[in-house]
Amino acid sequence: MTPGPILVINPNSSQVVTEGLRKALAGFCHPGGPEIECLTITHGPPGVVTQRDVDEAGLNTAAVIEARPDAGAYVLACYSQPGLDLARSITGRPVYGIQDAGVLSALALADLFGVIAVAQSSIPRHLRNLRRLGVDHRLAGEVALEGNVSVADSGHGEDSFALLLGAGEKLKAMGAGAIVLGCAGMSGHRKRLEEVLGVQVVDPTQAAVAMAFGKLVSEGL
Amino acid sequence: MTPGPILVINPNSSQVVTEGLRKALAGFCHPGGPEIECLTITHGPPGVVTQRDVDEAGLNTAAVIEARPDAGAYVLACYSQPGLDLARSITGRPVYGIQDAGVLSALALADLFGVIAVAQSSIPRHLRNLRRLGVDHRLAGEVALEGNVSVADSGHGEDSFALLLGAGEKLKAMGAGAIVLGCAGMSGHRKRLEEVLGVQVVDPTQAAVAMAFGKLVSEGL
Amino acid sequence: MTPGPILVINPNSSQVVTEGLRKALAGFCHPGGPEIECLTITHGPPGVVTQRDVDEAGLNTAAVIEARPDAGAYVLACYSQPGLDLARSITGRPVYGIQDAGVLSALALADLFGVIAVAQSSIPRHLRNLRRLGVDHRLAGEVALEGNVSVADSGHGEDSFALLLGAGEKLKAMGAGAIVLGCAGMSGHRKRLEEVLGVQVVDPTQAAVAMAFGKLVSEGL
Amino acid sequence: MTPGPILVINPNSSQVVTEGLRKALAGFCHPGGPEIECLTITHGPPGVVTQRDVDEAGLNTAAVIEARPDAGAYVLACYSQPGLDLARSITGRPVYGIQDAGVLSALALADLFGVIAVAQSSIPRHLRNLRRLGVDHRLAGEVALEGNVSVADSGHGEDSFALLLGAGEKLKAMGAGAIVLGCAGMSGHRKRLEEVLGVQVVDPTQAAVAMAFGKLVSEGL
Amino acid sequence: MTPGPILVINPNSSQVVTEGLRKALAGFCHPGGPEIECLTITHGPPGVVTQRDVDEAGLNTAAVIEARPDAGAYVLACYSQPGLDLARSITGRPVYGIQDAGVLSALALADLFGVIAVAQSSIPRHLRNLRRLGVDHRLAGEVALEGNVSVADSGHGEDSFALLLGAGEKLKAMGAGAIVLGCAGMSGHRKRLEEVLGVQVVDPTQAAVAMAFGKLVSEGL
Amino acid sequence: MTPGPILVINPNSSQVVTEGLRKALAGFCHPGGPEIECLTITHGPPGVVTQRDVDEAGLNTAAVIEARPDAGAYVLACYSQPGLDLARSITGRPVYGIQDAGVLSALALADLFGVIAVAQSSIPRHLRNLRRLGVDHRLAGEVALEGNVSVADSGHGEDSFALLLGAGEKLKAMGAGAIVLGCAGMSGHRKRLEEVLGVQVVDPTQAAVAMAFGKLVSEGL
Repeated sequence: MTPGPILVINPNSSQVVTEGLRKALAGFCHPGGPEIECLTITHGPPGVVTQRDVDEAGLNTAAVIEARPDAGAYVLACYSQPGLDLARSITGRPVYGIQDAGVLSALALADLFGVIAVAQSSIPRHLRNLRRLGVDHRLAGEVALEGNVSVADSGHGEDSFALLLGAGEKLKAMGAGAIVLGCAGMSGHRKRLEEVLGVQVVDPTQAAVAMAFGKLVSEGL
Repeated sequence: MTPGPILVINPNSSQVVTEGLRKALAGFCHPGGPEIECLTITHGPPGVVTQRDVDEAGLNTAAVIEARPDAGAYVLACYSQPGLDLARSITGRPVYGIQDAGVLSALALADLFGVIAVAQSSIPRHLRNLRRLGVDHRLAGEVALEGNVSVADSGHGEDSFALLLGAGEKLKAMGAGAIVLGCAGMSGHRKRLEEVLGVQVVDPTQAAVAMAFGKLVSEGL
Repeated sequence: MTPGPILVINPNSSQVVTEGLRKALAGFCHPGGPEIECLTITHGPPGVVTQRDVDEAGLNTAAVIEARPDAGAYVLACYSQPGLDLARSITGRPVYGIQDAGVLSALALADLFGVIAVAQSSIPRHLRNLRRLGVDHRLAGEVALEGNVSVADSGHGEDSFALLLGAGEKLKAMGAGAIVLGCAGMSGHRKRLEEVLGVQVVDPTQAAVAMAFGKLVSEGL
Repeated sequence: MTPGPILVINPNSSQVVTEGLRKALAGFCHPGGPEIECLTITHGPPGVVTQRDVDEAGLNTAAVIEARPDAGAYVLACYSQPGLDLARSITGRPVYGIQDAGVLSALALADLFGVIAVAQSSIPRHLRNLRRLGVDHRLAGEVALEGNVSVADSGHGEDSFALLLGAGEKLKAMGAGAIVLGCAGMSGHRKRLEEVLGVQVVDPTQAAVAMAFGKLVSEGL
Repeated sequence: MTPGPILVINPNSSQVVTEGLRKALAGFCHPGGPEIECLTITHGPPGVVTQRDVDEAGLNTAAVIEARPDAGAYVLACYSQPGLDLARSITGRPVYGIQDAGVLSALALADLFGVIAVAQSSIPRHLRNLRRLGVDHRLAGEVALEGNVSVADSGHGEDSFALLLGAGEKLKAMGAGAIVLGCAGMSGHRKRLEEVLGVQVVDPTQAAVAMAFGKLVSEGL
Repeated sequence: MTPGPILVINPNSSQVVTEGLRKALAGFCHPGGPEIECLTITHGPPGVVTQRDVDEAGLNTAAVIEARPDAGAYVLACYSQPGLDLARSITGRPVYGIQDAGVLSALALADLFGVIAVAQSSIPRHLRNLRRLGVDHRLAGEVALEGNVSVADSGHGEDSFALLLGAGEKLKAMGAGAIVLGCAGMSGHRKRLEEVLGVQVVDPTQAAVAMAFGKLVSEGL
């Protein structure tokens, strides 16, 4: 019996973001391997920005999970991990939040990690989760993009790349040996940023899908 | 240009253990995906048991890494992670230790984790690494097999399964939501143990290879 | 100008619980002092038990807060603190969660604290919050009532008192110098439990209201 | 039977400071509610500045507590909390230190807190207490007034307000979501500072009295 | 110029304890080396048992330090370290508390340490200091003698040795790799206890004097 | 029976460094006291700089320890503590690493400590050990010498003194109350640096030898 697909849930309504996720995850798709399915919650907000967005997205995500009991694993493809505890309470299958997976993967690569946030306002929310995760003392720093960039635009174009690079250089100077992209929309810049900065750059959705992939592979043996 | 293989280095000389790794990692091999190559250090000790074994294995592992600069990523397939710092000092490619990867993957699945050790004597060594990793406060407990089992035998047969199950039940009672197999040789029991216990069981080599796999996939995009 | 009332929000639909809160808070009502208003979310669940209950209660609570901008402070009278972050994101007035307030008040009285939970299943949720609060290392222990008691019944009758006493004695033996009642419904037993046990017992709603009371008093000077 | 008063003990001999406390606590006095009595240790030092001042004040405070067994609760109204452990060892009634109460109340309001110290020299003493309290990792920073201000003058006049404002702005920039006044004498500036800065400002004596008030109210039910 | 002696201050009035200290420190006395002088505060309590004893002893100790500015270093030879902060505030010479020195020396020898306390009632006081010292997470456990033993008797005779051995065996079973004697009076049993238990046993006064000795030696070069 | 000597092992081949150690430890040599013997591993690297140097030095050190079972205690006189765990696994006698001993001794003197590193590249390695030691939260900071100084030159001459002084002044400004010399070769500057800076300066080899000295003295009673 094959396990069901890895369901990657984008809780915002931006198809651009979901397309970006599909591109970022293309390399995980192999005949015979776990299937990866990216899904947009079309009635979600254009971006998960406010705490209300997060909390509403959590209930939307739970509805998706209940409608898709066939999935082998779930990935909450939003750095705020809406509904992570709720999801785990309604399914016995593994549920991965991308912030947790991204940060934990960075800790497997380096002593201290940094995070690039889309906006200053989300940093306190991230810090609360790092405390809950219990690894806040290994954070070199978290730096927000200096400019107003939407989630959808954060992974494309020279303008946003320049902003990511600026943030990354600050984090490198703070001692970060690995940098986590603090938004599901930034994956398009991962590879180039890593090459230019010369430190490991972790896309959190790729990190979460790698963990889910490994979990399903191990079950299939 | 394709990145080189994920080089999974078994620092002990036991071909049985390396064969077990190959079986545990078979599901990660896909045409077009990263290649996975398992390698035995044939002049290593039969099992990495004492601290001297660990320290000598570290230098052996470094020699392998220097002889194989073609690899895309390295996995140190021994729970004591021999030579992890040394390996990182001589290559710019990612190096994963299986204890770190296994524990961090467990933290992506559950609040508290437990560890099953082959022998009581290795527990203090593991605890030192958890302190270094900075996640010791999320350890529900670490329990050793009650009986004398070799690394090579720890993943086969009813006798060793019964011992793993006994340890796993203790850890579950201590509150562990995910259990890490504290030895590269135990992978053969992972699936069955998870089914019987009803909690997530993480094979650390699979966890490390999943991370390395994701890393190489992300570079290939 | 007088500040508005302290709005104590019971997110479950149980009028019995709200009545219990009113009784527990009666002593804070003084002519000229801050007004205290207890409110039931009548369309909420009978008790906030599951994670879904918590997450839905969070949105309900936010709706109440938006409908009552006249309040001087808000108290989320449920130990799971539904919607605490959301509430703080939509009002500039102080918002108190009773778990945080209860635990922090216990730390002002004693070195180590204990918690009595209504049910075993809520303990992991509480522990996650203690990690987020950053005071988990001062927890002597958390013990659940040994028996099936509803939130509404947990503060009345000999049966539930006996269960609270049993839990309290265990916590005292674990070294707890102060014990927090881990449910808004237990307040009816606080006084007697403290007298019988001989250690400080903190009702979390009283603790939160005391903080809110102090805050409003300080603003009125 | 009515519990005795909340005895607020000013261990320095400055009647100006005690008068400031009385004003800061006026709002807690209600007919039928707990009585609040502020007391000066007239043979104490003019201000508790040195470590010797602290240690001698501790014994003085204990003498007061023994002379006043009628009190319902004791508040040590000095940020250095002279004799806190001693006080708890000689009375079964609750004893609150204002540093602990102020900091814990700030944590009920915000993620990170800051502290304004009267003088640079008292910061290490405060940090030792935060480590003992176990919440040092949630400190955004502690900043001393830039200028020579006595305890008695720190709560009055434009000069000292300007210094408090300067310190508060630095703490806000460091990420403090709530600011604790690090001296019992600063209460006169609390309200205005909060309005100008736009972050919560906690007067530690008010915070401690609010907790004591709540404790006595709960006992009176 | 020779530095002055290491002044070892016994804050209790028991000459038996001071004699025990002299014997325990005899091996540090060498011609040309730092002189060691043990001193009894004859007007102190027979044993420092209560918190009041500790706080009064702190002022007594400070008076001794002020009367003896000729000393090269000061050792507070009481496990409760009376007046440590005060002592440091009045002299620029090094001041060692024996609890700090004993625990830190144990951490230089082993991963986890244990403590044998004279009485149950002093354990919370010790734990507060370990939190302040920031090493509480490396404590395997603290166990009190099972029986009523005075400070003066704790280092002599078969009866007290049997009690120390019982406590030591419990700590060894808890994982302690080094055991700190939690009282200045126990030094007479150190050597034998170490031989019987087979784990390192640290006498805290010897540990503190060794540090002071090293400090003065380094200044004399 | 006299215990054997304290064997101070310099794992690099620099006789200049070993001579520096002998001078730094001269004051510990007293007739009748423990003997101190400094030993150079002549086939070691000129300085332990890279991680490979550290790991190879660990095995060399173990060989020395096995060849010298007569020693009473072993001191690993290199700040990277090569082979500390290995050494402890092959001898029952006490083994001291100078980083651990130096840092723990600094914590017995002051609240926060700083470290002067020879080179920037060794700081991450030191930080990993501080996390393992569990005292990283008491580090005020670690600062590297601004210039290219060899281990052998770091303890002699005006040029290197000026660099140490520069680093020390930065650490003092960061709040360090005690400064640890982060290299076995710096001892020649300890005394002068302490006098000029006005804060305690700890030479780690002296600190470790003081602990070993105390241990052997205690065994000789």
